[in-house]
Amino acid sequence: MHADATNIPLAMLAVFGSAKLLAELFERLKQPAIVGEIIAGVLIGPSVLGWVESNTVLKALADLGVLFLLFRVGMEVRTRDLIRVGGVATLVAFLGVVAPFVLGWGIMASQGAPHVESIFVGAAMVATSVGITAQVLASQGLLQQRASRVILAAAVIDDVLGLIVLAVVSSLAREHLRILELVATAAIAIGFTIAIAKWGTSTVNRVAPHLVSRLKTGEVQFNLAMLLLFALALAASYAGIAAIVGAFLAGMALSDTVSGRVRDLTHGVTELLVPFFLAGIGLQLDLSVFRNPSTMILSLVILAAAVVSKLVGCGLGAMSLGKQDMLRVGTGMIPRGEVGMVVAQLGLSMGVIPKPIYAVVVFMAVATTLIAPPLLSLSFRGALHEEPVEDFQIG
Amino acid sequence: MHADATNIPLAMLAVFGSAKLLAELFERLKQPAIVGEIIAGVLIGPSVLGWVESNTVLKALADLGVLFLLFRVGMEVRTRDLIRVGGVATLVAFLGVVAPFVLGWGIMASQGAPHVESIFVGAAMVATSVGITAQVLASQGLLQQRASRVILAAAVIDDVLGLIVLAVVSSLAREHLRILELVATAAIAIGFTIAIAKWGTSTVNRVAPHLVSRLKTGEVQFNLAMLLLFALALAASYAGIAAIVGAFLAGMALSDTVSGRVRDLTHGVTELLVPFFLAGIGLQLDLSVFRNPSTMILSLVILAAAVVSKLVGCGLGAMSLGKQDMLRVGTGMIPRGEVGMVVAQLGLSMGVIPKPIYAVVVFMAVATTLIAPPLLSLSFRGALHEEPVEDFQIG
Repeated sequence: MHADATNIPLAMLAVFGSAKLLAELFERLKQPAIVGEIIAGVLIGPSVLGWVESNTVLKALADLGVLFLLFRVGMEVRTRDLIRVGGVATLVAFLGVVAPFVLGWGIMASQGAPHVESIFVGAAMVATSVGITAQVLASQGLLQQRASRVILAAAVIDDVLGLIVLAVVSSLAREHLRILELVATAAIAIGFTIAIAKWGTSTVNRVAPHLVSRLKTGEVQFNLAMLLLFALALAASYAGIAAIVGAFLAGMALSDTVSGRVRDLTHGVTELLVPFFLAGIGLQLDLSVFRNPSTMILSLVILAAAVVSKLVGCGLGAMSLGKQDMLRVGTGMIPRGEVGMVVAQLGLSMGVIPKPIYAVVVFMAVATTLIAPPLLSLSFRGALHEEPVEDFQIG
Repeated sequence: MHADATNIPLAMLAVFGSAKLLAELFERLKQPAIVGEIIAGVLIGPSVLGWVESNTVLKALADLGVLFLLFRVGMEVRTRDLIRVGGVATLVAFLGVVAPFVLGWGIMASQGAPHVESIFVGAAMVATSVGITAQVLASQGLLQQRASRVILAAAVIDDVLGLIVLAVVSSLAREHLRILELVATAAIAIGFTIAIAKWGTSTVNRVAPHLVSRLKTGEVQFNLAMLLLFALALAASYAGIAAIVGAFLAGMALSDTVSGRVRDLTHGVTELLVPFFLAGIGLQLDLSVFRNPSTMILSLVILAAAVVSKLVGCGLGAMSLGKQDMLRVGTGMIPRGEVGMVVAQLGLSMGVIPKPIYAVVVFMAVATTLIAPPLLSLSFRGALHEEPVEDFQIG
C-alpha cells in the first residue's frame, strides 16, 4: 500500500544515521565529526558498501543542506566585518585562483595532456567549496575570528573569479572567445554580489519590521527569512554565481534583525540536512582511480598540488595578517568539494576531459574536503582563548 | 556553471512562496490558512497556471513534510490519553470505514460499473488522511480536546483497517483470496501499532537518558529523535501501514522526554516542509473531470458521499460522547488526501479502474481536504473556552 513511501524514511535513516554514527566515532577518536560524516557517505556509497547511490532526492536534500548551512553562517556575520577585510580577501581569492590554475595546468601539460584538457583540470582546481570550512568554523564557534572573516569574504570573491575562469575556459574549448559576453557576465556577478552585500542589511532593517507587523500568518519572521533565502539563492544562480553565495548574502542581510526564534527554527533544518550535504560528497567518491597505477600517481600529485597551491597562494594573500592567520586562511581555502566536480563534469560532457581524468578531479575534490577539517582545527587551536587581535583596517 | 543548482531554489520559492501568500490571503478572508496552501498548489499546478509540476523532489519534500507534521502532533499527545479513548476510536474507525465503502460501492454499482471497479472506488473512499486534520488541530491549539484525541486514535486504527480493506480488494481483483496471508498482514500491522503505542514511551523514557549522556556529538537529543522518527516510519511501512503512522508513534513515544530545544528544532523543519505537503495535494488536482458533464456529476456525487459517509459513520461511532463531539469527530475524519489517490492509482495500474474514474477519485480526495478545515474550525468553535469535559473512560 505504501511501498513507494518507504523510500524516504529508508534514505533518511541510511544517510542521516550513518553520518551521525561516524560523527560520533570520529569525535571519540578526537577527529573532526565532519570528516566522519563525509566518510559515512564513502562507506555506504558505491565505492565501498554500495547501499546507497546518489539520486535526485538525495542530491536535492544535499543542495538544500548547503544552502541552509551558508545561510546560517551568513546570519552570524555582519556585512561591515566582511567589507573591512575586503582588501586582504580579494588578494587571498586572487592568488588562491591563480596558483592552483597554473599548477594544475602545468602538471597536466608536463604529462603531455592536450592543451584544453590541461586548462580544464586547472580550472577544476580553482574554486573553493566554502561549505566544509564554514561548517568547521561554525561548529567550533570560530566565525568571529579575523581569519574566518577573511576566509568567508575570500570564498565569495573566489566564486565570482571561478565563474570568470570557467567562462573563459569554456569559450576556449568552443574555440571562440566572446570578450563582450565575458565582461557582461563578470559585471552582473560582481554587481549582484556588491549590491546585496552593501544594501541588503539596511534594506532588510527598513522593510522587515513593517512586513512582520502587517502579516497575520504564524511564524511570519521565519517564513520571510525563508523567502529571502530562496529568492537570493535563485537570483545568485541567475547572476551566474553559486546559489550558496546567495544564501550566504541572505543570511548576512538578516544578521542584524533576525530573532532567536528564527535562528532556532533555521538551525533545525540545518541540523537535519547538513549530513546529506556531507555524506553526499562522500557518495561521489570514485575509487576507480586506484585501479590504474599511473592514474593513482596522477591523483595523488593533483591532490598534493590542490592542497599546496591554496595553502601557499591564499596564505601569501593573507601575509599582512601575520604567520598564524596566513596558515588559517590557507587551510580554510583548501576544500574543493562539489564545485570542482561541476567543472570536471562540464569538461567531460564537452568531450575535452577523458573519463579517468574526471575521476582524478573527483578524487581531488573529495579528498581535499577530508584533509581540510583536521588541518583547520589544528591551525585554529587555542584561537578561542587568544587575545583579540585588532581588526585589520583597509584604507 | 550552476545551472542545475537553480532548480532547488526555484522550486522552493515557487511552492513555499505561493503557499504562504495564499495562506496570508485566506487568513485575511477569515478562512483557514491551510486551505490557502492547498489552493496555492492548485493554482501553480497543471490545472491552472502550469508553473510547477509534481516531481520526485517535490514529492519527497511533501512526504517528509507530512512525516514531520505527524511526528510533531505525536509529541503533543500522551499514549495513555489515546488508549483511554481506544474503545470509542475503534468504533469510529470501524463505522468510518464501512459507511464510505458501502456508499461508494453502491453508487458505482447503481451506475452499472463493473463489480471490481465499484469495489475499488469504495476502497479508495475508506482511508482518512489525518495530516490535514492534524495540522488544523495543532495550529489552533486543539490537540488536547477529547474529540481531537478520538480523531487521532481513530485515524491510526483507520489506517490499519484501510490496509486490510486494500489487501482484500487487491486479492479480489487478482481473483484469488489468500486468507492466511491476509490474517498475517493484519496481525503484523496491528501488533506493530499496539507494541509501539504501548511500550514505546516507557522504552524511550528508560533508554534515552543513557544514550544522551554517553554520546558526544552536538544536538544529540535532536539527532536521536530524528533517528527514531525515520526508523519507526520505515518499520511502519514494512509492517504494511502508512509511514506517517510510524512518525506519529515515534512522536508519541518521545512525548514524555523530549526537550523544548528538540521541539523548536523539529518545528523549524515542519514549518519549512508542511507547505510542500499541502501544496502537493493541490498539485495533484485534475480538473479534467469537469470536461464531461456525466463525469462531473459523478464527481460531485462521490464527493458528497465521501463527506456524508464519514460525517455520519464516524459521528455515529462517537455517539457516546454527545452531539457536539459527534460532529467534531465526524468532520475531522473527512479528509482523504493522498491515501485515496494511492488506492485509485493501484486500481488504475491493475487495469480495474478506467482513467476518468481515477480522476473522479483524485478530485474527491483533494476536495475533501479543502472542505474539512472550515467545517472543522466551525465545529470546534469556542472549544478552547469550554468547561473541560470529564474524560470518557473505557472499561
